[in-house]
Amino acid sequence: MALKVALLGCGVVGSQVVRLLHEQADDLAARVGAPLELAGVAVRRLGRRRDAEVDPALLTTDAEALVTRDDIDIVIEVIGGIEPARSLILSALNAGKSVVTANKALLAEDGATVHAAARAGGADLYFEAAVAGAIPLIRPLRESLAGDHVHRVLGIVNGTTNYILDQMDSSGASFSDALGEAQALGYAEADPTADVEGFDAAAKAAILAGIAFHSRVTAADVHREGITEITAADVASAKAMGYVIKLLAICARSDDGRSFGVRVHPAMIPRTHPLAGVREAYNAVFVEARSAGRLMFYGAGAGGAPTASAVLGDIVAVARNVLARTRGPEESTYADLVVHPMGETVTRYHVSLDVADRPGVLARVADMFAKQDVSIQTVRQQGHGDDAQLVLVTHRASDAALSATIEALRELEIVRNVVSVMRVEGEDAS
Amino acid sequence: MALKVALLGCGVVGSQVVRLLHEQADDLAARVGAPLELAGVAVRRLGRRRDAEVDPALLTTDAEALVTRDDIDIVIEVIGGIEPARSLILSALNAGKSVVTANKALLAEDGATVHAAARAGGADLYFEAAVAGAIPLIRPLRESLAGDHVHRVLGIVNGTTNYILDQMDSSGASFSDALGEAQALGYAEADPTADVEGFDAAAKAAILAGIAFHSRVTAADVHREGITEITAADVASAKAMGYVIKLLAICARSDDGRSFGVRVHPAMIPRTHPLAGVREAYNAVFVEARSAGRLMFYGAGAGGAPTASAVLGDIVAVARNVLARTRGPEESTYADLVVHPMGETVTRYHVSLDVADRPGVLARVADMFAKQDVSIQTVRQQGHGDDAQLVLVTHRASDAALSATIEALRELEIVRNVVSVMRVEGEDAS
Repeated sequence: MALKVALLGCGVVGSQVVRLLHEQADDLAARVGAPLELAGVAVRRLGRRRDAEVDPALLTTDAEALVTRDDIDIVIEVIGGIEPARSLILSALNAGKSVVTANKALLAEDGATVHAAARAGGADLYFEAAVAGAIPLIRPLRESLAGDHVHRVLGIVNGTTNYILDQMDSSGASFSDALGEAQALGYAEADPTADVEGFDAAAKAAILAGIAFHSRVTAADVHREGITEITAADVASAKAMGYVIKLLAICARSDDGRSFGVRVHPAMIPRTHPLAGVREAYNAVFVEARSAGRLMFYGAGAGGAPTASAVLGDIVAVARNVLARTRGPEESTYADLVVHPMGETVTRYHVSLDVADRPGVLARVADMFAKQDVSIQTVRQQGHGDDAQLVLVTHRASDAALSATIEALRELEIVRNVVSVMRVEGEDAS
Repeated sequence: MALKVALLGCGVVGSQVVRLLHEQADDLAARVGAPLELAGVAVRRLGRRRDAEVDPALLTTDAEALVTRDDIDIVIEVIGGIEPARSLILSALNAGKSVVTANKALLAEDGATVHAAARAGGADLYFEAAVAGAIPLIRPLRESLAGDHVHRVLGIVNGTTNYILDQMDSSGASFSDALGEAQALGYAEADPTADVEGFDAAAKAAILAGIAFHSRVTAADVHREGITEITAADVASAKAMGYVIKLLAICARSDDGRSFGVRVHPAMIPRTHPLAGVREAYNAVFVEARSAGRLMFYGAGAGGAPTASAVLGDIVAVARNVLARTRGPEESTYADLVVHPMGETVTRYHVSLDVADRPGVLARVADMFAKQDVSIQTVRQQGHGDDAQLVLVTHRASDAALSATIEALRELEIVRNVVSVMRVEGEDAS
């Protein structure tokens, strides 16, 4: 007997899911142990042109009725956003139907409610497609590494910003020109806020941190900085020093292991670091665990077909569970670790200052770092007169100490302008 | 109530499993939903010094009695090799006990028997640790990509040979010097045959191909060439052309998708290819699928702790299944595709010949390629007199056509010696 699947949303990802369910029907049936039947597709408006051929008889605008229909076994949510996705997912789970979703925003904003509904409904909630598209990351973290102790997850999880930064790096383009090109190519949306301000990456970081550290994490726990302030000069200066600027998502335990930090921000990484070679809209994530060591996962982080691949993989898993009358692993939050404030994050910093060109400037600036116990690794003076610049790279220091140092530098009459402050990552990994 | 675990073998990997079961007991209990109790350890000899502290009361030399003991829920096999591992695993499965194993040799040699026993016994058979150590590869292939269509799996799956080739590439060392160094550092065994002749990689390739193509594959289906014939001159010549030599495992569907090939052999890859940057004893595997595109997985492919991490992940999964009275995915061989002979493999070739230094030699040699329909991409003549060499790189051709060409070249009086024939990979990927 066929398992009946309801699809919510028929846009870029949904259309691909429809196509693959159809094209790969025989293979999917063999892998699941029963055919999968697309039994309904909820859309906002009927009669719109779609990428995939959908039998018009399957289309409905009444999503709520669809997800609670008696014959539906599995609900696939690819609408995105908080509402109506949340209400529909909750209705499905409450009705005991398993859900596959690609909705990172909802899981990061209100994962607790959704996971609780899955538990209460005795249903599965799978979401591999929510993070890094086709790259298997959720399943390896929550299953393959279930017997290990994850220290850190660090990576590029937003393709749009990686494309923009890669363009800026390779062609010297400004942020706005690179963004325009990304929009023209379909890598960035007309309103690029979610990507360029780091909201998308922050949602993914929250999901990854929660799984990696067996704790509850929401988007509000994530320190978030976007890439809109990155200038062509920042990129060129990084390049001159052998670095490249990437928007990183970093989930890292504190040294004592009792808390962790989650942050998304642009950072300089050495050009020799494997993440430096991640070009265009690709994603790549490092997972560092006590026994496994360093693992890297690389692939297409977005796009209709790659995301649909992840959705289909989850559908197969959930369908097998439905047939076996069992469930996959639930949310795991037993460790209940604390998310520490950004000030406690320890990393290195690259600071660029416009300064007055007179004797004693370096000593005064160095003194401000010393007062906050921030140790300087390298310092370079360049230009003179009105163009005099100091470029400093620190040893590892807390974000709070660095922030206090910057505050103090701004007060100095000899510092004309704090041109840029950027974290340096990827050199402290064991 | 605790789930009871029996461990077969307490060497490099087994010792780490014992340590981690102990050190991470609380975390494991929380993740499984019940404590895991190490209830017995089968060893060859009692009273031997071990890396891990094992309660002497748990040690036994009667493995057969241990695996069938009524109170045992899960059996972990880390002895390796065919016997007694196979008999013990079969006994455990027949008794309905789930098995976690790292035994690539057994799975590649006689996987059918072992998988059939798991099915008959209603028990799980998990083996993430059998391929590429801690790198999650089996689970992503058989679960995350269950809704996709895998074209090709290509990668470095043997750390010992990668270490040796990396040494030869970076220091210009000979094979035997690099092997000696690998042995001194513990990367290679006293008898290195299984690694350097490609048996280890071939077993892994058979396992990966079987899962990727949903067909039954054994080690005997794998075309296997080792690295013992690789000379410092080969490595230097590759380097001069912008290539690096790696021992690759390649599982690839034919163009019509109805058959596939599985092969392990040294190959030249462009220095710009991501696999070229995989240094020392690391492993990395590309998976190319229709919807997901190119995915890469990278990490430590061997070693006690990384392998134990993979074993522990499987133990957690199997333990959850035992508690839920369910089973994970079984062997999937429904596609039942044919393994085509090596002669049908299509790739590119680098051929180096010692030739007589006289007019018309290139024309005669080129004619031999043309007769077999092997098209030449580049040719380089170097040296003269007794040192005259021809170095040719072909376009894509079948292995059979290339072999016939080489046979014909050997017959030519003007060809003094066929110095090397090596496949070129990593340039035809989409």
